[in-house]
Amino acid sequence: MTRERRGLVIVKTGDGKGKTTAALGVALRARGHGYSVIGLQFIKSAARETGERAAARALGFDLIPLGDGFTWLSKDTERTVSLALEAWDIAKGHILSGAFDVVILDELTYALQYGWVDTAEVIATLAARPAGVHVVITGRGAPEALIAAADLVTEMRVVKHPYQAGIPAQEGVDF
Amino acid sequence: MTRERRGLVIVKTGDGKGKTTAALGVALRARGHGYSVIGLQFIKSAARETGERAAARALGFDLIPLGDGFTWLSKDTERTVSLALEAWDIAKGHILSGAFDVVILDELTYALQYGWVDTAEVIATLAARPAGVHVVITGRGAPEALIAAADLVTEMRVVKHPYQAGIPAQEGVDF
Repeated sequence: MTRERRGLVIVKTGDGKGKTTAALGVALRARGHGYSVIGLQFIKSAARETGERAAARALGFDLIPLGDGFTWLSKDTERTVSLALEAWDIAKGHILSGAFDVVILDELTYALQYGWVDTAEVIATLAARPAGVHVVITGRGAPEALIAAADLVTEMRVVKHPYQAGIPAQEGVDF
Repeated sequence: MTRERRGLVIVKTGDGKGKTTAALGVALRARGHGYSVIGLQFIKSAARETGERAAARALGFDLIPLGDGFTWLSKDTERTVSLALEAWDIAKGHILSGAFDVVILDELTYALQYGWVDTAEVIATLAARPAGVHVVITGRGAPEALIAAADLVTEMRVVKHPYQAGIPAQEGVDF
């Protein structure tokens, strides 16, 4: 049996927990097959060392925080946009290079929602990528156009959340 | 700052893809913090070597397929139930022993749905576990009583699925 090797555009969106976690699960499974993986984090900052970054290294891939200094709370909009565009340029290079079988763009949707990065430009880049490359995009509020361009879209819906019961975030499962 | 260490019961349910994947992501993050993890797979059989099992080994935890020979398609109901109960006994031992910080029960919900394993017994076991132990349960159709007993419940909802477009399952992301 020959198996068609086709890269998928996978979107994990919705308000529920588990979007980044699910992307990490994709990375774990891909590394288990010896596929090359890179993860770019659009919001998370390098300041906080996370368990996920250490585990990624153990599995032989990098999870790179590009989120230093830009956020939707920032007052310096011009700087925010320019940093987001820089991050996107790095991502674009990795998507188009074909150097990685799986490219994870964690929390990219926020940059799209806030208009820092152009959704049409992202979709054009996805369309131009080498055939075997899987791209996983996470974050709330994925734009309709991105959903239309994706192969697999899952929405994470909150059914019950521990913060509602006053339980704080737990190391090891939340970060 | 002292951080309350409290084990959570996490349920990943719904018809969408990414439930097992999200559980693997939890495992990855936990291993990154040096937490001990074990994963028990209630439906998957050992016959097929999967990328996730290899990656788990690389991260220093076991993902153990307990699903040999029992399925909802089986004609020998008595054998199915006895195998499911054996699998549950193994899981119960790991939950109560405190030997693992994170116990993953992948696709346990099917054994509950089909009545092979008693939901009340599972809930009682969760209530009796050592305080720091996180338990992650995946699968469609999680019983209401389990959802009520859980701390964090996410439903994965299908927005778009590649099989709908005739794209077959892809190694590295699907298995």
